[in-house]
Amino acid sequence: MERKGAPLCVGLDPMLDRLPLELRGEDPAGAYERFCRGIVDAVSETAVAVKLQSAFFEALGSRGVAVFERVCEHVRAAGLLVVADVKRGDIPSTAEAYAAAFLEPRGGEPPLADVMTVSPYMGGDSVEPFLRACREHGAGIFCLLKTSNPGSGDVQDIPLADGRPVWQHVAGLVESWGEELVGESGLSAVGAVVGATHPGVVETARRLLPHAVLLLLGVGAQGAQPADVAPAFAEHPAGGLVSISRPILYAHESADGDWREAAAAEAERFAGELRAVAAVG
Amino acid sequence: MERKGAPLCVGLDPMLDRLPLELRGEDPAGAYERFCRGIVDAVSETAVAVKLQSAFFEALGSRGVAVFERVCEHVRAAGLLVVADVKRGDIPSTAEAYAAAFLEPRGGEPPLADVMTVSPYMGGDSVEPFLRACREHGAGIFCLLKTSNPGSGDVQDIPLADGRPVWQHVAGLVESWGEELVGESGLSAVGAVVGATHPGVVETARRLLPHAVLLLLGVGAQGAQPADVAPAFAEHPAGGLVSISRPILYAHESADGDWREAAAAEAERFAGELRAVAAVG
Repeated sequence: MERKGAPLCVGLDPMLDRLPLELRGEDPAGAYERFCRGIVDAVSETAVAVKLQSAFFEALGSRGVAVFERVCEHVRAAGLLVVADVKRGDIPSTAEAYAAAFLEPRGGEPPLADVMTVSPYMGGDSVEPFLRACREHGAGIFCLLKTSNPGSGDVQDIPLADGRPVWQHVAGLVESWGEELVGESGLSAVGAVVGATHPGVVETARRLLPHAVLLLLGVGAQGAQPADVAPAFAEHPAGGLVSISRPILYAHESADGDWREAAAAEAERFAGELRAVAAVG
Repeated sequence: MERKGAPLCVGLDPMLDRLPLELRGEDPAGAYERFCRGIVDAVSETAVAVKLQSAFFEALGSRGVAVFERVCEHVRAAGLLVVADVKRGDIPSTAEAYAAAFLEPRGGEPPLADVMTVSPYMGGDSVEPFLRACREHGAGIFCLLKTSNPGSGDVQDIPLADGRPVWQHVAGLVESWGEELVGESGLSAVGAVVGATHPGVVETARRLLPHAVLLLLGVGAQGAQPADVAPAFAEHPAGGLVSISRPILYAHESADGDWREAAAAEAERFAGELRAVAAVG
């Protein structure tokens, strides 16, 4: 983040009917791979991380998952952090298998991802195998806290007996899970997913989670503006990572010329706005 | 359920170091496939459904996911319901991709699974794409409610302002999501995951969710007994589906002879106990 100056994470949400025309003729998995590799190359000097949304790859079956793996490797080779957006969570013996899938070395190979998203609904013992991967393999996690979608309030905003909404209780859990994993930077390997679409939430999350990197979602297609994420950076210039997907991926829809150049230009534009907001560098 | 008489679901949680010795020499993905196919064949006359725990397949990468797919097809060909235990949940546009991955026809092929598990933490709009698959493709879902692991209380048991624990609020959401999907049987396509490891929870879940099939977990390796699930069947003989994994899969560890025969015998034993408990048939 210090070197690149902007807390930009590019989200890979490949959708077949929005791919550049020149790629649509190929089989879907091949088209996704060429598209994702092209986007990664286009933003590698601008972004610090790439977030792969697993669902879009899983929708193509195991061939799509193979593309997910190769794109993860390509992101790593490009010198960017790999965020596996998989939102997994399960009982401890099963969560161990998910940690092995995404955060642990695979035979002689490095882990697939540097960081993965996890769901907190099943509680502390369901998250512990991911914390172990953080301790033993230098991995990180982003725990769902208050998500960007309109329906997030159905569970996350319900008031508890002590007056706080559910998500603020989860914030306390996330902070405690991350306590032992705070590094020299003052930031923990345990971060949180926060939607920038809800007024006041980024600020409150920052206050409740002084050590967490906040993965900020909803800027772009979901309507939040770069300025909405500013509170995340109040205490640390690397306190947030802003993930932007569709406006960068599909910049070619409203631009002339090469789709890679359109994505690179849009990433550069967002990076400029985020650089100002985060006051990094 | 009426034809077989027992609400038994066999859970496929393949673990490399517990496979029968004769399979361990193979490459892991090949061993998982032979093992899972053998178990499915062994229990096909006894169980009504097979639940595949995706994590263990994902831990082997895309080759493991390919095995997951082929085992799903084998389960379907054996005449059993396929439950994809994947616990997915995401913003609506992403949840659509997960619904496509597991519950929708794949080109000319049938859907991978009949039912999948989903997480409710992100709220109603994150579940809607799965409900659409229920309406349009005859699929079903089991929504996480009160899970079997000891740590489940960290979020699920926190008291709300109205005195109920979080999971009972989620129960209200699940019942409302399933309302429009109640079939002639009186049961909905929207069910709920309930741990049988917590005293009183199955009974309360039954009362709060009169139309839901309860996917009951924790019998066997996690310590619950068949009798603990009895309240699920109070109103309907198909009101519950009891998933048992390790005691059946790894019955060979404490039995002589063939691993398939050991699994078949243990499945038959559990089915007998569940038949009595559920008073089906």
